[in-house]
Amino acid sequence: MSSKYKDLKQECYQANMELNALNLVIYTFGNVSAVDRDHGVFAIKPSGVAYEKLTPQDIVIVDFDNNVIEGSMRPSSDTKTHAYLYKHWKDIGGIAHTHATYSVAWSQAQRDIPIFGTTHADHLVADIPCAAPMQDDLIQGNYEHNTGIQILDCFKEKGLSHQEVQMVLLGNHGPFSWGPTAAKAVYNSKVLEEIARMAYLTLQINPDAPRLKDSLIKKHYMRKHGKDAYYGQE
Amino acid sequence: MSSKYKDLKQECYQANMELNALNLVIYTFGNVSAVDRDHGVFAIKPSGVAYEKLTPQDIVIVDFDNNVIEGSMRPSSDTKTHAYLYKHWKDIGGIAHTHATYSVAWSQAQRDIPIFGTTHADHLVADIPCAAPMQDDLIQGNYEHNTGIQILDCFKEKGLSHQEVQMVLLGNHGPFSWGPTAAKAVYNSKVLEEIARMAYLTLQINPDAPRLKDSLIKKHYMRKHGKDAYYGQE
Amino acid sequence: MSSKYKDLKQECYQANMELNALNLVIYTFGNVSAVDRDHGVFAIKPSGVAYEKLTPQDIVIVDFDNNVIEGSMRPSSDTKTHAYLYKHWKDIGGIAHTHATYSVAWSQAQRDIPIFGTTHADHLVADIPCAAPMQDDLIQGNYEHNTGIQILDCFKEKGLSHQEVQMVLLGNHGPFSWGPTAAKAVYNSKVLEEIARMAYLTLQINPDAPRLKDSLIKKHYMRKHGKDAYYGQE
Amino acid sequence: MSSKYKDLKQECYQANMELNALNLVIYTFGNVSAVDRDHGVFAIKPSGVAYEKLTPQDIVIVDFDNNVIEGSMRPSSDTKTHAYLYKHWKDIGGIAHTHATYSVAWSQAQRDIPIFGTTHADHLVADIPCAAPMQDDLIQGNYEHNTGIQILDCFKEKGLSHQEVQMVLLGNHGPFSWGPTAAKAVYNSKVLEEIARMAYLTLQINPDAPRLKDSLIKKHYMRKHGKDAYYGQE
Repeated sequence: MSSKYKDLKQECYQANMELNALNLVIYTFGNVSAVDRDHGVFAIKPSGVAYEKLTPQDIVIVDFDNNVIEGSMRPSSDTKTHAYLYKHWKDIGGIAHTHATYSVAWSQAQRDIPIFGTTHADHLVADIPCAAPMQDDLIQGNYEHNTGIQILDCFKEKGLSHQEVQMVLLGNHGPFSWGPTAAKAVYNSKVLEEIARMAYLTLQINPDAPRLKDSLIKKHYMRKHGKDAYYGQE
Repeated sequence: MSSKYKDLKQECYQANMELNALNLVIYTFGNVSAVDRDHGVFAIKPSGVAYEKLTPQDIVIVDFDNNVIEGSMRPSSDTKTHAYLYKHWKDIGGIAHTHATYSVAWSQAQRDIPIFGTTHADHLVADIPCAAPMQDDLIQGNYEHNTGIQILDCFKEKGLSHQEVQMVLLGNHGPFSWGPTAAKAVYNSKVLEEIARMAYLTLQINPDAPRLKDSLIKKHYMRKHGKDAYYGQE
Repeated sequence: MSSKYKDLKQECYQANMELNALNLVIYTFGNVSAVDRDHGVFAIKPSGVAYEKLTPQDIVIVDFDNNVIEGSMRPSSDTKTHAYLYKHWKDIGGIAHTHATYSVAWSQAQRDIPIFGTTHADHLVADIPCAAPMQDDLIQGNYEHNTGIQILDCFKEKGLSHQEVQMVLLGNHGPFSWGPTAAKAVYNSKVLEEIARMAYLTLQINPDAPRLKDSLIKKHYMRKHGKDAYYGQE
Repeated sequence: MSSKYKDLKQECYQANMELNALNLVIYTFGNVSAVDRDHGVFAIKPSGVAYEKLTPQDIVIVDFDNNVIEGSMRPSSDTKTHAYLYKHWKDIGGIAHTHATYSVAWSQAQRDIPIFGTTHADHLVADIPCAAPMQDDLIQGNYEHNTGIQILDCFKEKGLSHQEVQMVLLGNHGPFSWGPTAAKAVYNSKVLEEIARMAYLTLQINPDAPRLKDSLIKKHYMRKHGKDAYYGQE
């Protein structure tokens, strides 16, 4: 039985398996989605299915109002957060959510990750934001939908662009990341975890470690981004 | 030569091997048991046998009074603790004991693991209890039996339910976990180790990290448990 | 199509793959080069190519003035730093650059790694230097070329020999290492990462841990180096 | 060409390879020896040979006065320490030396490892001793021979038995362990590394963590050792 979403499911499946291969998740902790803007839907991991048992056929197709369009399984319990982000950030193509160890530790510590070095600056020029825990009435309400609101509010308050900062920590919870494709969203999850680990160690060695100075922040970002970029083959 | 406990031994064997595959043990540190309530016995790892040499035939069948019912090897030195728990908690199906690194570190630090985030709240809504080290007369007496008493006393004192909190740290020693099956007990050991690691890192980043607020604790637990649960496929 | 640099490319390719096998890099973080002094060129990893896709044919041949001599891909964005070091240190044969976790943490902490033990002293008899972050005008200028200047200035100020100290940390950035061959440069990267990790843990256990005393520093170095060396088979 | 030491070399070779398989060494850091008391010799790893290239034929046979009896390669640079220990501790059968990360960190911190829990007490009932760094005249003299003296002096001063405490840390350097066989010496190296890691984490979580109380120390040791031992199958 064929599906017009076969390729989308395959993309989503591969990105989820990559999350597992990169040691960013154990058991069923985490999920990745991939969007199809033309049809106004996204593909997402089914809820509570272990990676070693996951198949491309298990992937669920959902629209931006959280209706299941195709698939016999229940979609990820975080589906409404994905839907909210796709609806409001019209240029992103994939979203990843993990409970990766160091990213969660910073989330639980409720601290932004300071920009300490060029590994960080190669990817973004701001501290990685940690959104404050949600207010009680929002938690008791439509929780996962409100998680999306929480992320957008955080970006608005801090004056951040979701195109320049493709990752966020949710206080007490863990990281979300996104990008032009599902694969890039997973890449951003891995980079975030590595930056989180480096920043943790940096503070252990020197609690007064200074943030990277502005000139170096700009230089490293411009090597990879903008019109004069000279990193990579494109 | 067939045994009516063949399936039980196989279940126990697989759960023990999973402990090893999940990097929760080195050498012979750790053991898992699986119960057969109908026959009033449980299957447990033989004492001091390395995982790479373990076979399903080596698994020992023991009753709740610690008599060996079947098997030519000596059962785990922790057998009496398992028997005590099975005898008193009549609805559990499996028990796991490890010396996993972060779980042991919290046990040695003699600290409860605070509930810092949703990874923890997805599994239990209390701090993970650390039972106080045993009193001298109990240690000198029937030690492993008394370890069982120590665990039940801890749960009574703290007003905890063994159905809601399926794991405990023994002060100076290490973790025990349980669940409806041996596989679930092992799952709880792995989850405990990961929560222990995250909580350790959280305190290193922010020694004043707050406990998760009550509304979020309840929300995450209810996503997975209770009549309105919407996580997973059941 | 044959190339007179075939062996050089192969040496460079293998050293880059070794960086990956030793877990010193993720994705495209890092690069190794190998020099051919007779032809006045070096082979270096192309920019932004993932290790799993890298082939010996992709390796780029560059001269000491940063001209691409052979290869269809853009060379590593750090090429000018390599060129500068080859030009000024006429006896080195290979250079490695990574973003390995503990090495980066010390770089971000902007601290020299103190010589705490014999693992360190077996390889070098000084603290591992951390070069101060570059001045703003140098960053805005010819950045990677100036990184080379930054390294040489650091060695001059501290009175270090690049033959005796074959590694450096760049403040806010990460490590560079070198040696008589590309393979030895990679070896030095791995040793540096391990020393960085040991020194980090040492300070966590004892913030007042003393530097290794001079007599032991000299003894361990002399076991491996100098005319009376008695370590190894040569 | 056969050798009467073929089995001894094989035992030594396998124990060295096990050191590598257990992630206790990188490159050539570490060595294991196995003794043949009847012939008054021991087999030891050749100096500076990488584990992936090591063969049983490379193993060197040395007597207790450090004469090479068989083998074309130079023996480990630590050979004199092994010889000294074999000469004075007439009942040990194997010795292992590593630069394992956590063991080295405690050595560099120059701290005994406190007995914090039962993982430790299952193996020894004392803190793991850290021998003070050698005095300058001994370092400048017959260094590796004097390392043996340093270990014995440490045990004499602290009133320890090498049969009950089968491991030691050398200040600024790293661990030595021993046992009835080379395999058991390697086992002790692995256990030491794990205890070192757990103790490190324990102190990070609770800097005032108490030592294990005496009654528990004795109980756990007696489970595995002495006439009433009930751990394992013997």
